[in-house]
Amino acid sequence: MEVEIATIGGYEEVGRQCTAVRAGDDVVIFDMGLNLSKVLIHDNVETEQMHSLDLIDMGAIPDDRVMSEIEGDVQAIVPTHGHLDHIGAISKLAHRYDAPIVSAPFTIELVKQQIQGESKFEVDNDLIKMDAGETMQIGDDTELEFVNITHSIIDAINPVLHTPEGAVVYGLDKRMDHTPVIGDPIDMDRFREISREEGVLAYIEDCTNAAKKGRTPSERVAREHLRDVMMSLEDYDGGIVATTFSSHIARVKSLVEFAEEIGREPVLLGRSMEKYSGTAERLGFVDFPDDLGMYGHRKSVDRTFKRIMKEGKENYLPIVTGHQGEPRAMLTRMGRGETPYDIEDGDKVIFSARVIPEPTNEGQRYQSEQLLRMQGAHIYDDIHVSGHLSQEGHYQMLEALQPENIVPAHQNLENLAKYVDLCESEGYNLGDDIHLSRNGNVIQLTE
Amino acid sequence: MEVEIATIGGYEEVGRQCTAVRAGDDVVIFDMGLNLSKVLIHDNVETEQMHSLDLIDMGAIPDDRVMSEIEGDVQAIVPTHGHLDHIGAISKLAHRYDAPIVSAPFTIELVKQQIQGESKFEVDNDLIKMDAGETMQIGDDTELEFVNITHSIIDAINPVLHTPEGAVVYGLDKRMDHTPVIGDPIDMDRFREISREEGVLAYIEDCTNAAKKGRTPSERVAREHLRDVMMSLEDYDGGIVATTFSSHIARVKSLVEFAEEIGREPVLLGRSMEKYSGTAERLGFVDFPDDLGMYGHRKSVDRTFKRIMKEGKENYLPIVTGHQGEPRAMLTRMGRGETPYDIEDGDKVIFSARVIPEPTNEGQRYQSEQLLRMQGAHIYDDIHVSGHLSQEGHYQMLEALQPENIVPAHQNLENLAKYVDLCESEGYNLGDDIHLSRNGNVIQLTE
Amino acid sequence: MEVEIATIGGYEEVGRQCTAVRAGDDVVIFDMGLNLSKVLIHDNVETEQMHSLDLIDMGAIPDDRVMSEIEGDVQAIVPTHGHLDHIGAISKLAHRYDAPIVSAPFTIELVKQQIQGESKFEVDNDLIKMDAGETMQIGDDTELEFVNITHSIIDAINPVLHTPEGAVVYGLDKRMDHTPVIGDPIDMDRFREISREEGVLAYIEDCTNAAKKGRTPSERVAREHLRDVMMSLEDYDGGIVATTFSSHIARVKSLVEFAEEIGREPVLLGRSMEKYSGTAERLGFVDFPDDLGMYGHRKSVDRTFKRIMKEGKENYLPIVTGHQGEPRAMLTRMGRGETPYDIEDGDKVIFSARVIPEPTNEGQRYQSEQLLRMQGAHIYDDIHVSGHLSQEGHYQMLEALQPENIVPAHQNLENLAKYVDLCESEGYNLGDDIHLSRNGNVIQLTE
Amino acid sequence: MEVEIATIGGYEEVGRQCTAVRAGDDVVIFDMGLNLSKVLIHDNVETEQMHSLDLIDMGAIPDDRVMSEIEGDVQAIVPTHGHLDHIGAISKLAHRYDAPIVSAPFTIELVKQQIQGESKFEVDNDLIKMDAGETMQIGDDTELEFVNITHSIIDAINPVLHTPEGAVVYGLDKRMDHTPVIGDPIDMDRFREISREEGVLAYIEDCTNAAKKGRTPSERVAREHLRDVMMSLEDYDGGIVATTFSSHIARVKSLVEFAEEIGREPVLLGRSMEKYSGTAERLGFVDFPDDLGMYGHRKSVDRTFKRIMKEGKENYLPIVTGHQGEPRAMLTRMGRGETPYDIEDGDKVIFSARVIPEPTNEGQRYQSEQLLRMQGAHIYDDIHVSGHLSQEGHYQMLEALQPENIVPAHQNLENLAKYVDLCESEGYNLGDDIHLSRNGNVIQLTE
Repeated sequence: MEVEIATIGGYEEVGRQCTAVRAGDDVVIFDMGLNLSKVLIHDNVETEQMHSLDLIDMGAIPDDRVMSEIEGDVQAIVPTHGHLDHIGAISKLAHRYDAPIVSAPFTIELVKQQIQGESKFEVDNDLIKMDAGETMQIGDDTELEFVNITHSIIDAINPVLHTPEGAVVYGLDKRMDHTPVIGDPIDMDRFREISREEGVLAYIEDCTNAAKKGRTPSERVAREHLRDVMMSLEDYDGGIVATTFSSHIARVKSLVEFAEEIGREPVLLGRSMEKYSGTAERLGFVDFPDDLGMYGHRKSVDRTFKRIMKEGKENYLPIVTGHQGEPRAMLTRMGRGETPYDIEDGDKVIFSARVIPEPTNEGQRYQSEQLLRMQGAHIYDDIHVSGHLSQEGHYQMLEALQPENIVPAHQNLENLAKYVDLCESEGYNLGDDIHLSRNGNVIQLTE
Repeated sequence: MEVEIATIGGYEEVGRQCTAVRAGDDVVIFDMGLNLSKVLIHDNVETEQMHSLDLIDMGAIPDDRVMSEIEGDVQAIVPTHGHLDHIGAISKLAHRYDAPIVSAPFTIELVKQQIQGESKFEVDNDLIKMDAGETMQIGDDTELEFVNITHSIIDAINPVLHTPEGAVVYGLDKRMDHTPVIGDPIDMDRFREISREEGVLAYIEDCTNAAKKGRTPSERVAREHLRDVMMSLEDYDGGIVATTFSSHIARVKSLVEFAEEIGREPVLLGRSMEKYSGTAERLGFVDFPDDLGMYGHRKSVDRTFKRIMKEGKENYLPIVTGHQGEPRAMLTRMGRGETPYDIEDGDKVIFSARVIPEPTNEGQRYQSEQLLRMQGAHIYDDIHVSGHLSQEGHYQMLEALQPENIVPAHQNLENLAKYVDLCESEGYNLGDDIHLSRNGNVIQLTE
Repeated sequence: MEVEIATIGGYEEVGRQCTAVRAGDDVVIFDMGLNLSKVLIHDNVETEQMHSLDLIDMGAIPDDRVMSEIEGDVQAIVPTHGHLDHIGAISKLAHRYDAPIVSAPFTIELVKQQIQGESKFEVDNDLIKMDAGETMQIGDDTELEFVNITHSIIDAINPVLHTPEGAVVYGLDKRMDHTPVIGDPIDMDRFREISREEGVLAYIEDCTNAAKKGRTPSERVAREHLRDVMMSLEDYDGGIVATTFSSHIARVKSLVEFAEEIGREPVLLGRSMEKYSGTAERLGFVDFPDDLGMYGHRKSVDRTFKRIMKEGKENYLPIVTGHQGEPRAMLTRMGRGETPYDIEDGDKVIFSARVIPEPTNEGQRYQSEQLLRMQGAHIYDDIHVSGHLSQEGHYQMLEALQPENIVPAHQNLENLAKYVDLCESEGYNLGDDIHLSRNGNVIQLTE
Repeated sequence: MEVEIATIGGYEEVGRQCTAVRAGDDVVIFDMGLNLSKVLIHDNVETEQMHSLDLIDMGAIPDDRVMSEIEGDVQAIVPTHGHLDHIGAISKLAHRYDAPIVSAPFTIELVKQQIQGESKFEVDNDLIKMDAGETMQIGDDTELEFVNITHSIIDAINPVLHTPEGAVVYGLDKRMDHTPVIGDPIDMDRFREISREEGVLAYIEDCTNAAKKGRTPSERVAREHLRDVMMSLEDYDGGIVATTFSSHIARVKSLVEFAEEIGREPVLLGRSMEKYSGTAERLGFVDFPDDLGMYGHRKSVDRTFKRIMKEGKENYLPIVTGHQGEPRAMLTRMGRGETPYDIEDGDKVIFSARVIPEPTNEGQRYQSEQLLRMQGAHIYDDIHVSGHLSQEGHYQMLEALQPENIVPAHQNLENLAKYVDLCESEGYNLGDDIHLSRNGNVIQLTE
C-alpha cells in the first residue's frame, strides 16, 4: 500500500501545524493550527472576519493547497490537543473537507467553541469524541488509534494510523510525564507494544526542545516548586496575584489548591481563564471547589476586583491572564492601574510560566513587569516546566518506537537540524531514514 | 559602648570572607575564608606550603592587617559553615590570635581536618563546638548566639553578637528553607524575636543572589527534580553516574536514596566525597546505608570501578566529584578514559549542580562534558537549587530583623549595589544606614 | 569657600540628568534632562500638557526640590548638549530659577524650540550662546568655561566651574575623539592645563560605558564602516533606506555624502530628521548639498515618497527616523506598508545605530525588522560607535585631570559601581575621594 | 558527463574540510584540513607522530575512505588557502594519492613546511604553484581555474572546475573585500563572467557566518579601527603589546606600520609569528621594514625581551601569539610572568582578534586576560573583522553565480540550515537544488 506524508504546515516554524497522512485511498489530517504571531505583528487584524487565502498569505494558517496533489479521500481531521497552533485554523479550513473532526473530548469542546466564534465560514463537519486507548476504522485496512500522552494541556493524545505497512505515529506535542497532576501518565507501554507487534513505519516528532539537554521534568516538579513559593507567602497579609497559561488546567488546579492551603480564596479572572477552566470543569476533568469564581466579562471582573478590595486583598488569590505580558491581558491592565485592584508596595505577583523566548514577548513581558514594579510589586517568575520533550525524552521515544522513518516537525530548519543530530547519534541518517521536510512537501514512504 | 565592624575580606569578591565585630574591648571574627580562584589561576601552587603574606598578596586570603587598628581582644573566631570561602584561611591566620575557634560541630570537624593538613603553620587554637540555639559569653555585656539557618551544607548557622547597643547579626550564607532534607528549617522565629526584644544594630548580609527575582526554592524542590530524573531511568540497564558538591550532604543523601529506589548500589568516589560524607556520617548528621562505600584514595577508587565493571554497571550508581568539570576531579578523569569505568553509548551522567558562572569554570565544564559525550554519554544537568537567598528572601529577612544598619557582603561592588537598591526600596539609604564597604575598612556604628 | 555638589537627577538612572554646583553664594545647574522611558511606558501621556510635579512623581524629570536646601543663587542653567536626557526638562523647571540658560549655540537653538513647544509653563529665561573656549563670570571669584569635547551630537561641551578651591569639571557626555567628522577634536590640552595650573577639585563623570573594555572608536571608524557598506551597494538597482539618530549630524552628513558617491539623491524624512538637520544647517554646522530635501510633515513626506516611487527607488536614499523600531517612526511605518514607499524583495535597510539594550527597545526593534523582512528587506545593522567613553577613555581623563574628588553619574548604582572599581584601580577610594551619590543628595567638598 | 561531489569532511563541523569533485574520469580534491579542537581536547597528543586512521577516528582529519567509491583518478589536490582547517591533513592523507598538490604560492609554501614537519608519513606529491587567474588542464574537457578572493590570510583563492556540464565553484573561505590591505580585491567580475558564459553547475559555499546580518566589513575597516586605537596611545610611555592571528599578514602589516607611526619599533615574537610573516616576506607578499625583528625560538625571544626591558618598553611594540589565550602561547606566558618582559600597571594589551565563540576558548582567553590584568594591564579587544561572508555577501554571490546546485559547507547541520533558509528566500529548494550533505556522502549532479 502506498503511504505518504504531506508536511503541510509547521515544518518551517512553530505554529500552524498540519500534516496529512495517506494510506492507500484514505487520508487523515493531523492538526490544523494557527501561527498567532503572524497575526499579532499586524495591527488590528480580526481573524474571525478573514478569508483563508489571506491568512495563508500571511503565513498564519497552513497552506493546504498541496492537498490537491494527494490522491485519496480525507476521512478524518484529527487535532491532537487544544492549543491554538494545533486547532486554530480548523474554522478556516475544515469546511473544505467532507470529513469529521475526531479528537479527545476536551479538544472537541474547544474546537466547537472556536467554530462558534467564526464569522466568515460555515463549518459543519461532524465532531466526534474519541478517548485515548480507543480506535476508529479509517479505511478497509487502516485504523486510527489515540495513545495517551502528557502535555501542558489536558486530554492530549498522540494519534496513530495503523496501516498494513506499519504504524504512522504522529508525535506532537508531548513531554514524558509519569506523575502528571491531572490525568494518566504517558502510555509508554502502548508505544512499545505498537513497535513490537506491528512496527512503526514513520514517526513525526515535535522538535521544540531538541536542543535541551536532559529530561523535561514532570508537572509534579513544577507543582512542588509552586507549593514552595506559595507556602513561603503563608504569612503575607497583602495582595498576591498569580498568572499562568489559561489552558494549563493542571497548573490552575495547583494554584487553586495552594491558595486554599494558605487561607486565600482563589478566583479565576480573564476571558480565557474562564473559558478553559470552565470547560474543563464542565467536562469533569478537574474538580474545583464548588464556589470557585471564574469571570471573563469585563463587568464581572471589575465587580470581583471591587469585592476583593472591599473585603481585603489578603483573603484572595486572583489567578489571571497575562503571563506573557500581553498588552491587553488582565495582569498588564492591572499593572497599568486600569482595574479596581490596587497593587501596593510589597504585593506579590507569581508568573507560573516562562517567557516564550522571542524579542516581542520579552519586550512585552518586561514592560508588564516594569508597570507592576512601579507600583511596588515583587515578582516571582519561571515557576514552570516545559510541555515538550527534551533530548532524553527523544531518546526514550526512539528506543520505544524504533521507527523506520523519522519526520522532524514543529520548528524551523535550524531547530529541526538539532533533532536530526540526535537521531543520527542513534544510527539514523539524514536523507535516508530521516526526512527533513518543508511546508508543502510530500514524503513517499512506501509504494 | 563602641561597636564597630571591620570588613576585612569578601567585600570586593566572593571568597576569603572575613569580618570582625568589636563591641567595647571584645572582638569576634566571623569567617576566615579562601578565594580558591586566586590560587587556581596560577599553575602548581601548593597553598599548604605557602606563607600568609604571599597568599594575602595573591588576594587568596583576607588581609587581616587592618586588625592592628582595632582596639580590643579577639575572643573568638567563628566560622559559619564549612565551605572553603569561609574556613579556608583559618590554617593560615588563626594562629595569630589568642582565641578559640567556635563553630557548629560539623564545621569544627572540617576545620580540624584543615588544620591537620597545614604544613607551614602550627595552629593550636582551641576548637569549641556550639550548636544552633546555644550561646557563649564573650565580654561582660556581650554574648554570642548561633541561630539555625539553612544552606547548601549541613550545620550552618548565623552567629549573632548580642551587645548592649543591640544585636549584630552576621547573615552569611543562607537560603530560607522551610523544608530542608536534612536538619531543621531556618529559625525565622528567633530572628524575629531578637529584633523585637533587643533590636538589631547591624545586619551583615550575603548578597550573592541579590539580583535574582523571587525565592530560592527549598532543597525539597531540588530533591523532587532529582527524583523525577532518577525514576525516569529506572529501566535503563547501562551505566549511570552522578556528581554534586561533595559538601552538599543533603543532596548526596537524596542521590543515595534514589539509587536504592531504582535498584542500584550507590557508591561515593573521590577524595572530597569521602571526606565530607564520611565526616557527616561519623557525626551522625546523616544515616547512610551501613554498607555504603566511600572511597577517596586512587587505589580503592580503581578497585571499586573494576568491581563495578565486573559486576555490571547497571547495578551501581557512582556518585563522584567533578561537577564543575575540574580538570583533576573524578568525573573529568572518567571522561578522559583514565579510570577503569568505561562510559558507553547511552550512559547517563547527572550533574546535580549548576556551573558557577565564570568563563574558566564554564570552559572546564564544557570540556568535561565534551569528553563524556565523545564516549556516548547523555548529560542531565542543572538539577540544583542555590544555597543563597534571592530577592524575596532578602525582603523577608529585612522585615524579620528591621536592622538599624545594613552591611552588604559576599560580592563585588556591582553586586553589592544590587542589594543596596533592594534595601533602598525598603526605605534604607546608602551612606546613611546602608554601609557599602571595601576590604580593609572599619565602620563605626556607635560611640 | 564652600563648594558643594547637589546630585539632583541621573544618579540612579540614565536620563533626567541634573546637577547643581554651589561655590560660595553662587550656584550653577548643569543639565535639566528628561527620562523619556518613564513617559513612554504609559499610554498616551502628553508631556507638553503636564505639570512638573506629576512628571517628578513619574520619575521623568529631576526632583529639584533639593534646591531649597542649597544656600545661594542660581546664576546659570547650563545644558551640555542637545540630547533630551540633558535638556528635556528645561521647559518644565527652568522658569523656577531667575537665571539665564547658557549653552553652546546648537544646544541653545534646540532649547529654544523646546520652550516654544511647551504648553503648560511660560519659560522666559534668557538664552545665552557661548562657544567652547569661552568663559563667563559667575560670582566674584568663580567663572564658567566651556571646554570642547566630542559626542554623538555636534557642539557638545564640558562646562568647568573655576572656583578658588579648584575647578569643578562636569564631564557628561563624551567620547575621546581625535578625528570627529564634524567639529574639532576633544580639547585634552585644555583639560591638562586646568589640572596643571589650577587643580581639579571635583570631576563629575559619565559612567555609561564604564564596564566596556578598551576605547570607544572615533566617529571616523563608524564613517569608514558605513562607507564600506554603502560602496558595496553601488551596483544595487533597487531601494536602499537608511536610519540613524536624527540628532547625530555627523552621521547624517556621512550618509548624505555616501549617497551621492553611489549616485543616489539623499533625502531626510521624519519630523526630527528635519528638525535637527535643518537647525544644524541653518546654524552653519554642516554644509549639506543645496538641494537636500528635508521633510517632516506627513504630507510632504508622502509626496516625496510618491515622487521616489515614480522616478525610481534606485535613484534615492531616504534617510529616515526609526532606528530603534519606535512604533510611530517613519521606518516602522514603512515596514507596516503605511507609506507610499514600497519595500520590495532584496531592498536594503541600513541601521546606522545600535539598539539601546533594554527589552522594550529590543522588542520594538525586532518587530520593526520583522515587518521589513516580511516585505523582503535585507538588514544591515550596528553600523555605529558609541558616544560615551569606554574604560581607557576614563583612564585617560583621570590622568589628564588628576581630580581630588570624583562623582560618578549617568547610570544606576550597579553601573556607577563599575566606574568606582576603575577609579580604585587608579588609587582613589570609595567613601573617601569617590562619592557614590543618589538623586537628591548633597556632597560637601570644601568648607 | 557524470559530475558528482563527495562531501568528505567539514560538512558536520568547522574543521577538517575536504571535498572531492569528479567530472567523468577525473577527480579533484579541494582542501585536506585538520580539526584542531579534536586534537587539543586530549592531553599531550602529538599529531606529528600519529597514524591517519587514529586521527580519523578522533574526528581530527577527513575520513577519506569514501574515495574508494569514487570511480576516477585524482588529478590534483587543491588547498584553497593556508589555514590549518584546509591544509592540516595533507601530511597525513596526500601520500595516498598519485597527484600533485596545486595551490597559490603562499599556500604551497605553508604546505611544504607542514610536510617537512611530518614524522609518520613520507609525502612526496609534487607541489605546483598556480596564481589566481591561471588555469590548469585536468582532464580532456575539464580545467581548473583559480579565482582571486579575499580572506583573513593572503593568497587565498576559490578554485573552479570547468566541466562540459558547467562550472563547479568551490567557494570556501572568503569575505567580499573590495579594499583589502594586501593583495587584490575579490574578483567578482570573473565570477559573473563564469556564470554568464558557462553556467555554474554547483556552488559549494562556506556557511560560517550565514546567520550574521549585513555585510562583513573590509579589512580596511579593521585597519581604521586599529589605527584609531594605536594613535590614541601615541603619548603613552609604558609598554604596549599586540596580538593577532599569526597568519593574518595584512593585520600584522597594519600593526607594524602603526607601531612606527607612534614611534615604536615593532617586533614579531612567537614561533608561528615568525613562520607566517617570515614566509610572506620571503615570497614578497609584504614589504616589512628591513630591520623588522621576527623571533620564534625561546632563546631569541627571551633575548629580545631582555633588550626591550633594557632599552625601555616605551620604544617597542611586541606583536605576539596568544590572541585566543592559548595556554602555551607567548601572551599567556607573558601574563604568567614567564618571560623577561614585565607587564606593569597601565600597560596596554591589544587583541586584534575576536574570541572564537566556544566555551573552551572563552575560558582560556578569560584566564589569559585575568593574568594580564592581575599585573595591571589594560585590555583593548575585538579590533577585528571576520574573514567570512555574512548574509549580504551570500546574496551577492548567489546573484553573481546563479548556480544550478548549492552545497552548503563548513559548519554543523544547524548552521548549514541557516544558509539553506537564505537560499530558499532566493528561490532555491532544499532537497531539490540545495543539497544538505553529511561527511562521507556523494551527491550526483549529472549523469
